[in-house]
Amino acid sequence: MKFLRIGTEGAETPCVLDNDGVARDVSGIVGDFTPETIPTLVERLSEVSLGTLPAVSREQARIGTPMTQPRNIYCIGLNYSDHAAEAGMAIPTEPILFNKSAATYCAPNAPILFSPRMTKLDWEVELGIVIGKRGLNVSKVEAMNHILGFTVVNDVSERAWQLDRGGQWAKGKCFPNFCPTGPLIVTPEEVGNASDLSMWLDVNGERMQTGNTRTMIFDAATIVSYLSEFMILEPGDLICTGTPPGVGMGKKPPRYLAVGDVVSLGIEGLGTQTQTVIDVENASWI
Amino acid sequence: MKFLRIGTEGAETPCVLDNDGVARDVSGIVGDFTPETIPTLVERLSEVSLGTLPAVSREQARIGTPMTQPRNIYCIGLNYSDHAAEAGMAIPTEPILFNKSAATYCAPNAPILFSPRMTKLDWEVELGIVIGKRGLNVSKVEAMNHILGFTVVNDVSERAWQLDRGGQWAKGKCFPNFCPTGPLIVTPEEVGNASDLSMWLDVNGERMQTGNTRTMIFDAATIVSYLSEFMILEPGDLICTGTPPGVGMGKKPPRYLAVGDVVSLGIEGLGTQTQTVIDVENASWI
Repeated sequence: MKFLRIGTEGAETPCVLDNDGVARDVSGIVGDFTPETIPTLVERLSEVSLGTLPAVSREQARIGTPMTQPRNIYCIGLNYSDHAAEAGMAIPTEPILFNKSAATYCAPNAPILFSPRMTKLDWEVELGIVIGKRGLNVSKVEAMNHILGFTVVNDVSERAWQLDRGGQWAKGKCFPNFCPTGPLIVTPEEVGNASDLSMWLDVNGERMQTGNTRTMIFDAATIVSYLSEFMILEPGDLICTGTPPGVGMGKKPPRYLAVGDVVSLGIEGLGTQTQTVIDVENASWI
Repeated sequence: MKFLRIGTEGAETPCVLDNDGVARDVSGIVGDFTPETIPTLVERLSEVSLGTLPAVSREQARIGTPMTQPRNIYCIGLNYSDHAAEAGMAIPTEPILFNKSAATYCAPNAPILFSPRMTKLDWEVELGIVIGKRGLNVSKVEAMNHILGFTVVNDVSERAWQLDRGGQWAKGKCFPNFCPTGPLIVTPEEVGNASDLSMWLDVNGERMQTGNTRTMIFDAATIVSYLSEFMILEPGDLICTGTPPGVGMGKKPPRYLAVGDVVSLGIEGLGTQTQTVIDVENASWI
């Protein structure tokens, strides 16, 4: 099953793609894709004949976040051995965890906001896990049953704030719009092997990141099981699972984002995102 | 103005204390204390004659969280010079930031949940800041205008998870009920000097922490201004501002919490909390 939300911000129509790739409005059945409805989404929608539901055009339409605001956004750091190498850091022996603020969450093609105080604005294409079911101390065997599906995330990062401002990484990960998410949430059975998905990221049309989830150190099931020891995973929670090589910080010389740059990224079977970097002063909603 | 919420979980009545300390039901005027209503709370309630509103008894009543779920819970680490010393860590040159998960947020007297996987469960009495107004790049001069008020927080921490499990601190800060908050939110003009409040914490009646906010390295206005460079502060966001000496990790020998322990804590003018440590297996709602 493939979920997406189409329409103006705050008034998106929740849709499921049918076998022909047509978006079908499921608002009449489930309301919206929220932490409250997510646990029963697949069950409620699996018996529906999608062809009988209203089609929603994607032409010229805004693609929204693929679900409403998550209660928690978690990120795993240095989860690709080749990215750890380019960052000059040791390969972690267990997942490294940090959090992103609520306001980082935004639509897949929303602008990246540049603050004049930033000096090292960077990109990170990542496989996102959307939690489907509440869980504490979930076994690795059970973990896949706690995943609603997978999505694309750009874990936008300000490296100077992350690494040079006091030890913990959170400061460089929490600026508004630092977590473009979507366009789709694709359920595990439709993704197939989540540990063999190619992924890429371009800046102004130049390929920066090329990777595959097969080089992840900790796979999706391991991450879900591991995190659930330390915190309760809740429906709608988003877990960003780390990035492959090719971030700006790892380039020689380093290459960071500036106003006007265009970032495009995607993961096999999960769709693509495009963001333009704009000055935060021009973000009227901030 | 002093805000609190009284009643069963999820159905609390929002109240303001009148001059005689009687809780008055303000639900008819503001609905509840939420991220949406917080920006205008003080303005809307300042013209109300509290004595005309229904009194709500606090006898035998459950005290709830002092506002609904925050969108973000931020914490400042090592913000008391004497606590940094007991932790064996350098005094930070700028605030250290980490986040707590949504499910940590709970009522001031809710139980602390012990997982059998914990080995170093610890306490931290802290001054909490509740944000009243949205802000990005807020100056230190403007910062106090972004604070709705102050509250008491126990920044419950599992030290082995925080310090021995992969670098970032978040793992030891995010377990359910790790952020008892309240009973009150007290507005700045009623608190007086937030940089001169005595604070304390007992375990089973034995004094463990004795401190005063005057030994904070970074004061409330500095913290609000500083954080707003890296993230947008939103109404209802909670910022835990660090703990004075006397945490279990700093005792010689170290002293950690076990099932059955009772933790009491308070801050001058902001009220007190009492928590009992119970096995998470006995927390029916988890």
